[in-house]
Amino acid sequence: MNIAILGFGTVGTGVYKIINNTDRQATNLNVKKILIRENHKINLPEMTNDIDEILDDIEIDVVVEVIGGIEPAHRYILAALRHKKHVITANKAVIARYMDEFSRVATENNVKFYFESSVGGGIPWIQGLERALRIDSIDTITGIFNGTSNYILDQMDKTGREFNDVLHNAQELGYAEADPSDDIDGIDVANKLCISADIAYDRLVLPDDHRLPIFGIRNINRTDIEYFNQQNLTVKLLGKSFCDGKQFDYAVEPSLCKASAIEASVPDNYNVISLHGGTIGMLKFMGQGAGQLPTANAVIQDILDIYQGKEHLQRAFKSSLKFNPNLNRRHYLIRTRVDVVDIFEGYQLTVHDNYVLVRDIPVGIMHDLMKEILIIDELAFMTCVPEDLETTN
Amino acid sequence: MNIAILGFGTVGTGVYKIINNTDRQATNLNVKKILIRENHKINLPEMTNDIDEILDDIEIDVVVEVIGGIEPAHRYILAALRHKKHVITANKAVIARYMDEFSRVATENNVKFYFESSVGGGIPWIQGLERALRIDSIDTITGIFNGTSNYILDQMDKTGREFNDVLHNAQELGYAEADPSDDIDGIDVANKLCISADIAYDRLVLPDDHRLPIFGIRNINRTDIEYFNQQNLTVKLLGKSFCDGKQFDYAVEPSLCKASAIEASVPDNYNVISLHGGTIGMLKFMGQGAGQLPTANAVIQDILDIYQGKEHLQRAFKSSLKFNPNLNRRHYLIRTRVDVVDIFEGYQLTVHDNYVLVRDIPVGIMHDLMKEILIIDELAFMTCVPEDLETTN
Repeated sequence: MNIAILGFGTVGTGVYKIINNTDRQATNLNVKKILIRENHKINLPEMTNDIDEILDDIEIDVVVEVIGGIEPAHRYILAALRHKKHVITANKAVIARYMDEFSRVATENNVKFYFESSVGGGIPWIQGLERALRIDSIDTITGIFNGTSNYILDQMDKTGREFNDVLHNAQELGYAEADPSDDIDGIDVANKLCISADIAYDRLVLPDDHRLPIFGIRNINRTDIEYFNQQNLTVKLLGKSFCDGKQFDYAVEPSLCKASAIEASVPDNYNVISLHGGTIGMLKFMGQGAGQLPTANAVIQDILDIYQGKEHLQRAFKSSLKFNPNLNRRHYLIRTRVDVVDIFEGYQLTVHDNYVLVRDIPVGIMHDLMKEILIIDELAFMTCVPEDLETTN
Repeated sequence: MNIAILGFGTVGTGVYKIINNTDRQATNLNVKKILIRENHKINLPEMTNDIDEILDDIEIDVVVEVIGGIEPAHRYILAALRHKKHVITANKAVIARYMDEFSRVATENNVKFYFESSVGGGIPWIQGLERALRIDSIDTITGIFNGTSNYILDQMDKTGREFNDVLHNAQELGYAEADPSDDIDGIDVANKLCISADIAYDRLVLPDDHRLPIFGIRNINRTDIEYFNQQNLTVKLLGKSFCDGKQFDYAVEPSLCKASAIEASVPDNYNVISLHGGTIGMLKFMGQGAGQLPTANAVIQDILDIYQGKEHLQRAFKSSLKFNPNLNRRHYLIRTRVDVVDIFEGYQLTVHDNYVLVRDIPVGIMHDLMKEILIIDELAFMTCVPEDLETTN
């Protein structure tokens, strides 16, 4: 099977390495072309700057897109599908926006569009979710979807250092990008949760929908972490979606986990993603959510599925499930210098040291009110609190 | 697809329920016959007491064996395969002993022999392991493989009750059988670890091999649990196997887990099973390791794989990997009234309250010496201790 890799960064290099070093089934695979940027030097015989050289090569069966970002990735993926090439991508941003277009064009051209590596890196999450859906409806998706933010929170927790220190350190180690916004503002989690919900509910959830409640960890500080620790709680950035059969909700938000929760023990840049289904109950998948070889491994798993004729679940995105950001009510702990009594009129408020606890507030309303608070206090922070937590009473 | 279910206990009933209640892909499935024991009453039109009625029915494509035990399960599975019927079984005891025979006879008859539900119940463990093996060699398999023993340890930990109290309670709830030996003596874990190692290493590991180090939780008491708790440790019954490319080891043993370990947070009758591979790194799968619907779900996943033509990994069990029970050295904490100074001559011993800590002892030797101790002190207990544990220094 002949493969072209678009982009030769971390993941692209990893795919090349595994294919050329393995003694296993991946030996049936051959990297024939690698697309690099125009101003980059060609130092491998497979390299080219010309996408048409790949599109017009009828010997190439599979195109692996690991450029990242929206364009030209979107354009290249469509062109490759229209040239009757299977496409595999790790690019969550472009999939979350164009999943329906890619799926439709792939079907029209009788080729596959697979994206296991886009959510949870090396974790077989998409595959596990699709498999669960063969039997069950899925009513819950939750998890730690982003390794960078988990690394930052874990380091703050273990070392007592400040957010910016740890972020800077993560950037030096290559765990965080120069512009870390996607990771720390919850955008990356949002994309991955959209992709997961698309599949679970057979309904498109677009990351640009301004109604999606998304709140990141940019504003968390050392004092917050210490306060949570005193109460034996660990804060994690979670993606969450629940479905009652007619409606579903969706949220990305910092969430306090009790020490007994699996999520509380997920270290470093690991991810854990969970589903709940009617007969299977709760399933959790944990592994390296990023990193060169785990992500490349997931890309190659998709290639092997194509090679072995293992079809993935087909979705038409025609479910009539309604999005309701206020489907669930939760408790939140808020830190702000703003007087929030008027803002949360009608909700039960209690003060706990430097924090205000709001009880039983619909999730979408909470996120909207937090946006109002942020206009006045741009350093304000909020986190979801476990329902059955007694210590903050 | 027409299915016959052999045995109509918990899992058999679950398979019947899911197939007849689902609105999903399982609707292509039809339970045509159910084999029940001779003295049991026939109260469903599908029921029969006669195995030949199933074997000779050319419309039956798949036989699901959920009788349990060795015979007649072994005989029925072989007969079904020879009658060109695919066989799916949840019966770990019979698979662990006859995996090679079943696989060979299935291949000779051009049918499938699948057993996802036999290890980890509803957890897609076999599937996840086989998938990982498409790219990586697996060098580590560890996990909590038995829900009953995990439930007992978790309840002892949370309630401070004594072993026999909790076991009795588990029996009343249907979590433990009248004769609980397989669960509490590590036999069930041993079978599941054998099956996992067979697949991971492509080499048969037979549960009757007397060299396998297997130690259960029968002798643990309330005082042990309290002592571990004081040190912020949780005891779990773990199955473990490591491979260095030429040799592998194998052990079933109580093991202390630090609070930060995922295993320490696995509650009730849940299982968690982990693998480690060269490119994928560490992957963990957690879910319900037993129970009617999760186990039945895994059975039906196998049926759907056959229906959709999704081939599982083929193993020939021809690897020359050597079993070495002493490949790894570990630390152990022992509680016994026997004076162990002579027994552990040559190893570093220290006394910690009522326990003796033996450091850096080869696993196989430790298990052999423990057998000697048990002859004199049948209530003696041992548990493996994390290597990097400072508190017991």
